[in-house]
Amino acid sequence: MLHTMSQEQILLSAIKCVKEQKREELQKIVAELQPYDIATLYITLPDKHRLKFLGMLQPKQVAILLQELDPPMQIDILHKLGVQQSSNIMDLMENDDLADLLNQLSAGKIEEFLAAMRTEESNSVKDLMRYPPDTAGGIMTNRYVWIRQTYAVRVAVDKLKLFAEIAENIYYLYVLDEDKKLVGVVSYRDLIMADATDKIEDIMFTRVISVPVDMDQEKVAQVIQQYDFIAVPVVDGQHRLVGIVTVDDVLDVIIEEANEDIAKLSASGKTIDWNTRPFTAALRRLPWLILLLGLGVLTGSILSGFEDTLTQVVALTYFMPMIAGMTGNTGTQSLVVVVRGMASSGKNLKSAIRLIFRELGVGLIIGIVCGALITIVASIWQADPMLGLVVGSTLFATLVIGTVAGTVIPLLLYYFKVDPAVASGPLITTLNDIFSLTVYFSIASLFISHLM
Amino acid sequence: MLHTMSQEQILLSAIKCVKEQKREELQKIVAELQPYDIATLYITLPDKHRLKFLGMLQPKQVAILLQELDPPMQIDILHKLGVQQSSNIMDLMENDDLADLLNQLSAGKIEEFLAAMRTEESNSVKDLMRYPPDTAGGIMTNRYVWIRQTYAVRVAVDKLKLFAEIAENIYYLYVLDEDKKLVGVVSYRDLIMADATDKIEDIMFTRVISVPVDMDQEKVAQVIQQYDFIAVPVVDGQHRLVGIVTVDDVLDVIIEEANEDIAKLSASGKTIDWNTRPFTAALRRLPWLILLLGLGVLTGSILSGFEDTLTQVVALTYFMPMIAGMTGNTGTQSLVVVVRGMASSGKNLKSAIRLIFRELGVGLIIGIVCGALITIVASIWQADPMLGLVVGSTLFATLVIGTVAGTVIPLLLYYFKVDPAVASGPLITTLNDIFSLTVYFSIASLFISHLM
Repeated sequence: MLHTMSQEQILLSAIKCVKEQKREELQKIVAELQPYDIATLYITLPDKHRLKFLGMLQPKQVAILLQELDPPMQIDILHKLGVQQSSNIMDLMENDDLADLLNQLSAGKIEEFLAAMRTEESNSVKDLMRYPPDTAGGIMTNRYVWIRQTYAVRVAVDKLKLFAEIAENIYYLYVLDEDKKLVGVVSYRDLIMADATDKIEDIMFTRVISVPVDMDQEKVAQVIQQYDFIAVPVVDGQHRLVGIVTVDDVLDVIIEEANEDIAKLSASGKTIDWNTRPFTAALRRLPWLILLLGLGVLTGSILSGFEDTLTQVVALTYFMPMIAGMTGNTGTQSLVVVVRGMASSGKNLKSAIRLIFRELGVGLIIGIVCGALITIVASIWQADPMLGLVVGSTLFATLVIGTVAGTVIPLLLYYFKVDPAVASGPLITTLNDIFSLTVYFSIASLFISHLM
Repeated sequence: MLHTMSQEQILLSAIKCVKEQKREELQKIVAELQPYDIATLYITLPDKHRLKFLGMLQPKQVAILLQELDPPMQIDILHKLGVQQSSNIMDLMENDDLADLLNQLSAGKIEEFLAAMRTEESNSVKDLMRYPPDTAGGIMTNRYVWIRQTYAVRVAVDKLKLFAEIAENIYYLYVLDEDKKLVGVVSYRDLIMADATDKIEDIMFTRVISVPVDMDQEKVAQVIQQYDFIAVPVVDGQHRLVGIVTVDDVLDVIIEEANEDIAKLSASGKTIDWNTRPFTAALRRLPWLILLLGLGVLTGSILSGFEDTLTQVVALTYFMPMIAGMTGNTGTQSLVVVVRGMASSGKNLKSAIRLIFRELGVGLIIGIVCGALITIVASIWQADPMLGLVVGSTLFATLVIGTVAGTVIPLLLYYFKVDPAVASGPLITTLNDIFSLTVYFSIASLFISHLM
């Protein structure tokens, strides 16, 4: 029945159940819902019904709900439930999600919750919280199922059944030796295909691809994407298994990293989304804007050095925005190619040098085309071929150099271990402003006698 | 032994095997490699060894290799192998990868390959090629395992074993009724947990989340991401199962879409990567650059309307790049928030209106801060408080309007079903140039008598 109901109808039924305290009917609805749908239901539920709704869920369901929500709503639920009840729920959460949640809280609060949790669970989550959040250790879960290579398939399946609850989202079994070292992997599919009496060591895959616990999360995402894995094992320095990273966490990482690149390229600073408050959003943007303001004043002071030229040929002013804009744009285009190329796969020195020469070629082609076009347009418009040549040759020079600079600068940053995306679009644009206008007025000053 | 060898050593061993025609030794190496590693090996192999290398692989291994490579290298292999041998390989490829490969070729070539393939396989891939590439149908595979709800678990497992080869990357079994309608789903894990005599209808999950075959690939990616699925079933208008989309394909979609957004925001036109040829890359950039060139000339002609003002107060020129740059930047920042917000989840009218007011607030805050700053700087620098006020009030006005325009324009485009990312950064920047300079010189012209 439920699978024919719309989101709206489910919400109305749920509200009805909450109001009339019909716990069993609510359970019938929730049992059929996916975690994401439970979260959607909770978010659309009016606040006054939420506490009662939580009370009518099973603890495991509240744990699943918590895992799906954003930090502000998670913390709201912890407040609603109080420490003791929250800790009981935390015992049932996935450890990686719980670690993320706890990391949002103050040190005192963390202590309080951990103390109220079951020792086994709190130790396990404390282990996870030791790792920096944007490394393999920070996004892994330490709930996995491991087996010995000497097991028969039947024994492995029995162990799996025993751990059914925690193995919910896991698609491989990991084979460890006596030192907890990772020696093989077996998929659910392998288990189904095998005979019950087969030995694990005969069906396991031994060339296991694993990632070190301190690997950057972006690199981990690359490994999973390149190999089309559902999960990848995480090992410590002694090649001992310490956790696994699953593809659903990696999906979130990839989206997060793409948004970060975009935010940096547009110099938005820290990510701003639709729900960020005006004051916070303004505060995140202001540092960049004030930097650009300073650079803008610098541009102005350089321009003021050409006061004589500007006074004598006012028409030069008309082409300033065009030259600065075009140079800035072409630099940004090159920058984006470098940044995204770096993000999607590690590139080596050889391909970087080839890229620089490619961009030089691109710069020459677009420089010749755009330079020739503007020479003609400016010559006719201002009835001054000399002015046209000054504008055209300037544009040619700045497009070529802007394209190459937009490639070389981020590459250099990359090799000096600075994230090239911080050489953000607007920053490169402003630097290009300064550079291109200097070239423009230098050329113009050289030919000033012919221009008057 | 192999799992201790480096990439380099594997390459050298492979070359040795190829040179000495040691097929069996090569097979030992390749059998232990992941598809991605086989592709990396092939790419690093010198071209002169490649044909021989291909000849020493099993057809299934060549099929796996083909699936991993980029179109130019795929097509190169088809040329190397010839139509007949290529078609035999194609019979063994995943149908969704094959459809993508064939879509790169001319209609004549496609016919030729399909005719040489096994009828069953060619029909199956022809089915897939009917769907637009960026929809659920375009990224799905039609190789899945389906069962009846009346089956016992034992029967389902037997069927699974039978289809082991094609079920390689699939983690769910789909339950169909007599009309091929999707009525349930069972995971490998459910099969392992169940008893051999259990009925499928008793263990299957009935509230199946599926996507329609014509759903946009970005939406499909959202569904898989939100629900943390490994795969999602694709159904036609009659709710009949026609294929499945797996998470590894979705990973590629998310990366592709993020790159597209970035390319549009930087007005790079079609995506340019590190391997695009100079001429092609230039050709893809030029249309945008020429458009911007035209807009730049338009800006110039508006400026020329203020010739008198410019001649009388040259110092006004010094602040032009700063005002235009700041306005352009703040507009782009707002644009990015809208575009990424739209991409990551469908937003409704109510939250859009709230966003506009948020951005108005942001614009006011940054306008007041930056406007006040530049008033002070300009007043002191040029020893002219009146000039400072003109520059400061201009910056205030353009920052507020630029911020709001950078939000409203993409929102409007979105509601008129135009992709807001095409209102690209540079385009908004140039429009802001025109707008901000007009405001600047209009204000300046009003106060010209006080400025001289």
